[in-house]
Amino acid sequence: MSRPVAAETGFETHEVFNQAPPLEDYNLFTSDRVLQESVAREGAGDEAAQLTAFGAKIGKAEVLDLGRQANTYLPVLKGFDRFGHRQDRVEFHPSYHALMEISVAQGIHASPWEHLARGEAAPAGRNAARQAALYMMCQVEPGHICPITMTNASVPALLFQPSLAEEWLPKIVSRAYDPAFGPMQAKTGVTLGMGMTEKQGGTDVRANTTRAEPAGKASAGPGSEYLITGHKWFFSAPMCDAFLVLAQAPGGLSCFLMPRFLPDGTLNAIQIQRLKEKVGNRSNASSEVEFKRAHGWLIGEEGRGVRNIIEMATYTRLDCAVSSAGMMRQSLAQALHHCAHRRVFQKHLIDQPLMQNVIADMALEVEANTALAFRVTRAFDMADESEEEARYRRIMTPVAKYWNCKRAPGFAYEAMECLGGNGYVEEGVAGRLYREMPVNAIWEGSGNVMCLDVLRALAREPEALEVVLGEFDSAKGMNGHYDAALAKLKEGFSDIGTLEPRARRVVEDMAKIAAASILLKTAPGEEVSETYCASRFGGESGDLYGALPLGAPLREIVERAMPVL
Amino acid sequence: MSRPVAAETGFETHEVFNQAPPLEDYNLFTSDRVLQESVAREGAGDEAAQLTAFGAKIGKAEVLDLGRQANTYLPVLKGFDRFGHRQDRVEFHPSYHALMEISVAQGIHASPWEHLARGEAAPAGRNAARQAALYMMCQVEPGHICPITMTNASVPALLFQPSLAEEWLPKIVSRAYDPAFGPMQAKTGVTLGMGMTEKQGGTDVRANTTRAEPAGKASAGPGSEYLITGHKWFFSAPMCDAFLVLAQAPGGLSCFLMPRFLPDGTLNAIQIQRLKEKVGNRSNASSEVEFKRAHGWLIGEEGRGVRNIIEMATYTRLDCAVSSAGMMRQSLAQALHHCAHRRVFQKHLIDQPLMQNVIADMALEVEANTALAFRVTRAFDMADESEEEARYRRIMTPVAKYWNCKRAPGFAYEAMECLGGNGYVEEGVAGRLYREMPVNAIWEGSGNVMCLDVLRALAREPEALEVVLGEFDSAKGMNGHYDAALAKLKEGFSDIGTLEPRARRVVEDMAKIAAASILLKTAPGEEVSETYCASRFGGESGDLYGALPLGAPLREIVERAMPVL
Repeated sequence: MSRPVAAETGFETHEVFNQAPPLEDYNLFTSDRVLQESVAREGAGDEAAQLTAFGAKIGKAEVLDLGRQANTYLPVLKGFDRFGHRQDRVEFHPSYHALMEISVAQGIHASPWEHLARGEAAPAGRNAARQAALYMMCQVEPGHICPITMTNASVPALLFQPSLAEEWLPKIVSRAYDPAFGPMQAKTGVTLGMGMTEKQGGTDVRANTTRAEPAGKASAGPGSEYLITGHKWFFSAPMCDAFLVLAQAPGGLSCFLMPRFLPDGTLNAIQIQRLKEKVGNRSNASSEVEFKRAHGWLIGEEGRGVRNIIEMATYTRLDCAVSSAGMMRQSLAQALHHCAHRRVFQKHLIDQPLMQNVIADMALEVEANTALAFRVTRAFDMADESEEEARYRRIMTPVAKYWNCKRAPGFAYEAMECLGGNGYVEEGVAGRLYREMPVNAIWEGSGNVMCLDVLRALAREPEALEVVLGEFDSAKGMNGHYDAALAKLKEGFSDIGTLEPRARRVVEDMAKIAAASILLKTAPGEEVSETYCASRFGGESGDLYGALPLGAPLREIVERAMPVL
Repeated sequence: MSRPVAAETGFETHEVFNQAPPLEDYNLFTSDRVLQESVAREGAGDEAAQLTAFGAKIGKAEVLDLGRQANTYLPVLKGFDRFGHRQDRVEFHPSYHALMEISVAQGIHASPWEHLARGEAAPAGRNAARQAALYMMCQVEPGHICPITMTNASVPALLFQPSLAEEWLPKIVSRAYDPAFGPMQAKTGVTLGMGMTEKQGGTDVRANTTRAEPAGKASAGPGSEYLITGHKWFFSAPMCDAFLVLAQAPGGLSCFLMPRFLPDGTLNAIQIQRLKEKVGNRSNASSEVEFKRAHGWLIGEEGRGVRNIIEMATYTRLDCAVSSAGMMRQSLAQALHHCAHRRVFQKHLIDQPLMQNVIADMALEVEANTALAFRVTRAFDMADESEEEARYRRIMTPVAKYWNCKRAPGFAYEAMECLGGNGYVEEGVAGRLYREMPVNAIWEGSGNVMCLDVLRALAREPEALEVVLGEFDSAKGMNGHYDAALAKLKEGFSDIGTLEPRARRVVEDMAKIAAASILLKTAPGEEVSETYCASRFGGESGDLYGALPLGAPLREIVERAMPVL
């Protein structure tokens, strides 16, 4: 946070000027036209008032600074206590807990499931409202979002075992964050994590060697207790209160709920080996663990582990797509803000033709990817009542996860460069976002895994492709580049046998066409949709940002993206 | 470094398998077909034996590990001594000094200028030989390359003041690295840095507020002593023995040689405020400094500061282009090595069609960008004897700097993802490279600055464009996509008035066409050049890697790129 400096407290040798003020004390919702429109369009327009309040709350300088603190004062593994006993806990900086408290109070960790705990019908737009908050909160600090996302996503998997769901759900939906290291029974609220990948297999979870044996001969089967021995190579947020864990039971790979503490108050046998030293996402204490006959309860049937936990992954993947778009928005906002204040050669950067081209191109990317993420969110909200939306969701979730997450690292780099050398220094936000971006693309299924998942869906549910193409068709006739791209995409599906090596191109085209179809039908001005189509489909673009064609309405696009302060 | 683990020292709960062995104890030169071919093609074929020896030396596990150490145990500013006196020195880990010693012993810091100190004629291929070593060494550790690069690049600027050049050159070309913190006169060898940008102006150095006044009225003018007061906002490698510094003299912005110690052995008044906490490039102690009537000697005339220091920047920009290609090569090598060892779904990653497409696409990018970097290097070697090469160099240096450096961050991310979660963890090389990449694109003139520099050259030396296009023409008729791209590029030059907003696209096209022209004329197999042209010019590609067209010879391209162990 900056403050005015009296002349006497400045430097003897020079005066500091022409540095942009920090972007803070602003409303993350009302400053963001694209977010507001997306939320209204995709079913959470009624939530505008509370999202406005949330946007104001978390845009305060002191809240934004929590994000910096939580990534400066990193979590520390306390493997042992001072007397040498195992302790296996992680100590976080207060800023991390403060961020968790904010996200939990907002319900980002579970709000779409509150109606279940109350026995009510599902309210409309519950996922859209949550994603709007997530989109904003990941701009403040993305690392703590890991347990927040996993908690929300664990519910649909937990529902496969009603006995466990009934017990845990009230504590999951609670909006009272409780960081206590103790049994769930004594806490006001809980968070959930998961453990899937092992050293020998990440994507390939069927290579899991972790074993689960029934704790008592009589008690095997759904909901019963097992003893689990093995390890996990990436075990994020080990301070959660319970984890969905994959292990090999006698009946095959199975999904278990493994609590941090047993109901009798003793610590479960989850031994933390070390914390991962990650490129980014540093506030989040990802770990390597060993299970030494750790207790867990079987969720559903033995052998149904992948099918059960994939329900969780569907939700985490949407969160990845949304939060990558959100973090791109924050990268862009930093760049826009800097360019509006920094003068070079007697002109603000934002008034220089080449820089305008760069940030306008980036603004198009954010708007398109945000539109895509919220469109897929609507499919989550409506999947129970609409078969079409369920099918759209099945195909377009991995498409959006692929595209938004994979576009993010290159985007964050370009935004960083707009800030010059300051962008590369850690005190700023741009560098932190750049380091963060790859994780969303890698975890929850990397790029190729997403592509193969799309192909799997296409093979199993050919009707789903019809739904998606039908939606794309609804924007036909509005733009020649779009129509040509759509025709080419359809042609590409004619030869199913060669889809695998071509999968990235197909998925990329689906993502861009999906986004363009929304922009064409709903963007308030033609400047965005026309320029997006010309540059993304018409070949009037480059392999890097800043190559929009001559005559593109750069200034209008930039003005639309500029944070409204 | 890994070693076999006896069963008794392993884990109780699991066995570790299906992890790739580390890529180490290999020859960075002989393992790299593309590098060897580029070096032979561009004039340093005779150096193969010594480059082979160097490649073996720095590919040893213990040397590669120095790179990790130097970025783990970071330089520390010792602002004050234990009694409270100012000290203004930086303490480095021994690994940093070991790396400096290796690079200096190889002559990467100055070998192209050794003939000057010996009064001999310039040997052929001196820049190509040096760049080959740089290409390899930045794969081991790029941070220490900063002072190595600046030392080499300072010489042509220093030559504007023969009195200073005569005094400093013998110590500059010395291959005996001397880390002592003391006056140049007492050292076996020296390194040079530079100070250009200030808080209020980076690109815009004419906004410099740092002032220089003649130390004695009688002694103003070339070579004389000035007293300099002000600051620098990015002052890299402050432990160098002298710096080329820009400051406002009575006659305008001027270039000075500012020594760390004065000839009488006292410390010059360069006060280090703090070290920059950068996203990457962490072994390199970039700093913020104040000059408090620091002593410096004028290089050339007053008012010629930019013209003099730009001579230095020409060389650092080439180094950026080469080292970004080198680091991309290392990113690719890590990905290839991992994919050749890691099995997923009972198949090595490298045998999976979609992964093949990704790494083949990446291999094309490395080969093209390496070819471009070494072609421009040849222009440096021949610029004195050939006007055409001087013109090629003038235009293509900023083109190569733009393209290679800006492609690197997105590339490093994609390579990281090939390694899955391990790629995102700092113990590996992939994450370090990802963090490093943006700095080359940002310093020494960011992307837009490079584009505007190309436009400036086109305006001032229209003949230079003819030289470049003439070279591009020499590959005409070999590939239809290439011919079409070249025709479009030429068309784009017809409307000079609109070049500025279009500059990124034009520069990108020049880079790709330049690279393709080399590949078409010289690549050993058609698989590389044909696929490059089809994907980069023919629209048969995507906005992300891994979208090469059906039928592309993926396996051949991957095999050509695979490190030869």
